[in-house]
Amino acid sequence: MSGQVLASEEIARLRAETPGCDHVVHFNYAGSALMPRPVVETTIGYIRREAEIGGYEAYDEALDRIEAVYDSIARLLRARRNEIAVVENATRAWDMAFYAIPFQPGDRILTSVAEYHSNVIAFLQVAARGVSVEVVPNDEQGQLSVEALAGMIDERVRLIAVSHMPTNGGLVQPAEEIGKIARDAGALYLLDACQTAGQMPLDVDALGCDMLSATSRKYLRGPRGMGFLYVREPVIESLIPPLLDGHAAEWVAADRYVIREDARRFENWEADYAAKLGMGAAIDYALNVGLDRIWATVRQRASELRSGLLAIPGVTVHDLGATKGGIVTFEVTGIPSDQVQQALHAMTINTTTSSVASTRFDMEARGLERVVRASVHYVTTPEEIGLLVDAVGTLAEQGAGDERLQATGAAAG
Amino acid sequence: MSGQVLASEEIARLRAETPGCDHVVHFNYAGSALMPRPVVETTIGYIRREAEIGGYEAYDEALDRIEAVYDSIARLLRARRNEIAVVENATRAWDMAFYAIPFQPGDRILTSVAEYHSNVIAFLQVAARGVSVEVVPNDEQGQLSVEALAGMIDERVRLIAVSHMPTNGGLVQPAEEIGKIARDAGALYLLDACQTAGQMPLDVDALGCDMLSATSRKYLRGPRGMGFLYVREPVIESLIPPLLDGHAAEWVAADRYVIREDARRFENWEADYAAKLGMGAAIDYALNVGLDRIWATVRQRASELRSGLLAIPGVTVHDLGATKGGIVTFEVTGIPSDQVQQALHAMTINTTTSSVASTRFDMEARGLERVVRASVHYVTTPEEIGLLVDAVGTLAEQGAGDERLQATGAAAG
Repeated sequence: MSGQVLASEEIARLRAETPGCDHVVHFNYAGSALMPRPVVETTIGYIRREAEIGGYEAYDEALDRIEAVYDSIARLLRARRNEIAVVENATRAWDMAFYAIPFQPGDRILTSVAEYHSNVIAFLQVAARGVSVEVVPNDEQGQLSVEALAGMIDERVRLIAVSHMPTNGGLVQPAEEIGKIARDAGALYLLDACQTAGQMPLDVDALGCDMLSATSRKYLRGPRGMGFLYVREPVIESLIPPLLDGHAAEWVAADRYVIREDARRFENWEADYAAKLGMGAAIDYALNVGLDRIWATVRQRASELRSGLLAIPGVTVHDLGATKGGIVTFEVTGIPSDQVQQALHAMTINTTTSSVASTRFDMEARGLERVVRASVHYVTTPEEIGLLVDAVGTLAEQGAGDERLQATGAAAG
Repeated sequence: MSGQVLASEEIARLRAETPGCDHVVHFNYAGSALMPRPVVETTIGYIRREAEIGGYEAYDEALDRIEAVYDSIARLLRARRNEIAVVENATRAWDMAFYAIPFQPGDRILTSVAEYHSNVIAFLQVAARGVSVEVVPNDEQGQLSVEALAGMIDERVRLIAVSHMPTNGGLVQPAEEIGKIARDAGALYLLDACQTAGQMPLDVDALGCDMLSATSRKYLRGPRGMGFLYVREPVIESLIPPLLDGHAAEWVAADRYVIREDARRFENWEADYAAKLGMGAAIDYALNVGLDRIWATVRQRASELRSGLLAIPGVTVHDLGATKGGIVTFEVTGIPSDQVQQALHAMTINTTTSSVASTRFDMEARGLERVVRASVHYVTTPEEIGLLVDAVGTLAEQGAGDERLQATGAAAG
């Protein structure tokens, strides 16, 4: 975890390989990253080949490269290739694991305050079967309290499901400590690594997770419409996929099928192979840069951005946790967050917003409705951070002016 | 349904817009088609734009075009846009409808002899809940017997699920007649149009289906990794998607979510928007050519191919049904079908094979293990058919020679 921050010359080289760096000031890596050129060309090159010789024929020709994607993912996670399923996105990866768990009435699901709406909605769907969904309180640093979690454990805890980093802040959950508790408790542990894959080193044994879901398009800088699922080998056979097809299972007799033994039981036969190869290229690219160094650089840049924003009167920064990653969330007094995002976009500065509907447990508890989300990556430069901080500073002055104006108007009215 | 066969000059023009026509003799449209140039360039152009300005930013910019894809699908099916979900592929489209049906013990599912393995495996998964899966016999023409179906109906029939055209032959099921029976019986009717979308005109009201699933990559000539689902408006609310996320449902309070009312409840938030736009371009392209004319041309070419193959001693053609479409399946005496496929591939003639594992009810009943599948489209020329027929003729002669040799050897041995 103690990688060196990338040197500015290396960042310049990596930016030169990123077409988007010429067009936009991108602070939306936690939404969808700017793809490096090798990823774009791998994806597009494969589509062109499909158009030239046919989709199935291009697949046959590229089979070794397609299979190598599983090796790349296994390297990224320090897992084995038979533990990997490649699916359409992180949501479907997470779903195929979660909905495969044979919950019984009385089972308990423990999750975090900062949990993502898609996951919570799935919990609530299963709760209708008599399963209890319980939120582990945060500790004083705003991250999942490991102590509280330990105190909530009993033999009815079937699943601990946590987002490694939430959609609405740089918070890094204490995933390894959670893993130790899950293992001791004999509970399944599903880690949603949607925001952390490609941002920090991940080692499924150190994390102690049984299942891990991730996406291609965010910190891995791969194409959209692609993701993957890891399931620990001994756990695979206990999970019956909620949807089955002729790839996940084999129809062996008129009234009988056999589900495949490896993690590809969570896949289905058809795939976007261009995006699959593109994701493989993105993972190889990240491994080449080095996840240790990426993580050190991301934390450094995010820290610089938070410092810059904190120095602006009227700006509040909302990230929680002892360790913070690349997602920076803030508000500007007097200006709704969606207007801040739009104003920045007009300056070709890409950010997004995150609303209470996405992380309701957390945002409601903190009284937040909508925050601006600016996410950095290792290709983010101090100059870009300066541009964003200056732009937010200008907006904050306007916001303060508008507030004064309103106060005056209110006094006069 | 009475369209004109495309004139050879028009086919020449459409082939000139198909890069693959310069490289291969493609008889694998039922596998994955050769995409026309507008589809390729739409898909690739969007990926390049994502790389330039960011994935979410490209989405915002293209929102009108992305929404128009729903209108294109609605036009294709004569449906309404709120009845359309765009999902990762035909399998997941079918799954999201099928697994959403609230089956009760004692319910019956009726299906066809020619049903596809992925669908049957899903039936069998649900059968474990006490649901009965029953195969409607064929009539004397080898298609689902409408009479037999009518005789099997009772109030316990919850679902009639049929593949419009099977994976292993040109058979067109009597989908409209099935629809009438389903409607009279009050049973749900799920039509798998994986092979027919883009091949023939589809009108969901005339078909009488409640749900219809389809893929992009086959007769529609769109990109891989994309498909869609139609669900009739009054049926939508009765189907609870087996997987839910923050797009399909809204998390409205700590312990409550609301599923959206339109067919997008069967989608999830993330998508491969490049492929989605590519599929839209493919549908518009097909609508421009005209589904009536496409269907007339496909039947004409398939008929020419069957005639050519039937004239070769040692070749048997296996397609069933009163009406036959673009899929032609055959065997060459003395040569295993996978070797025929490989030999053709060596001549840059793309075909594929279809095995008993994919359509077990049908292939077992007919004593078939593996057949060669050659599928035509409207861009297939009589010259290409001549090339394939000649190549199969040469193989058939070799096969007959090998058989004679083996017979001689056996006599001598």
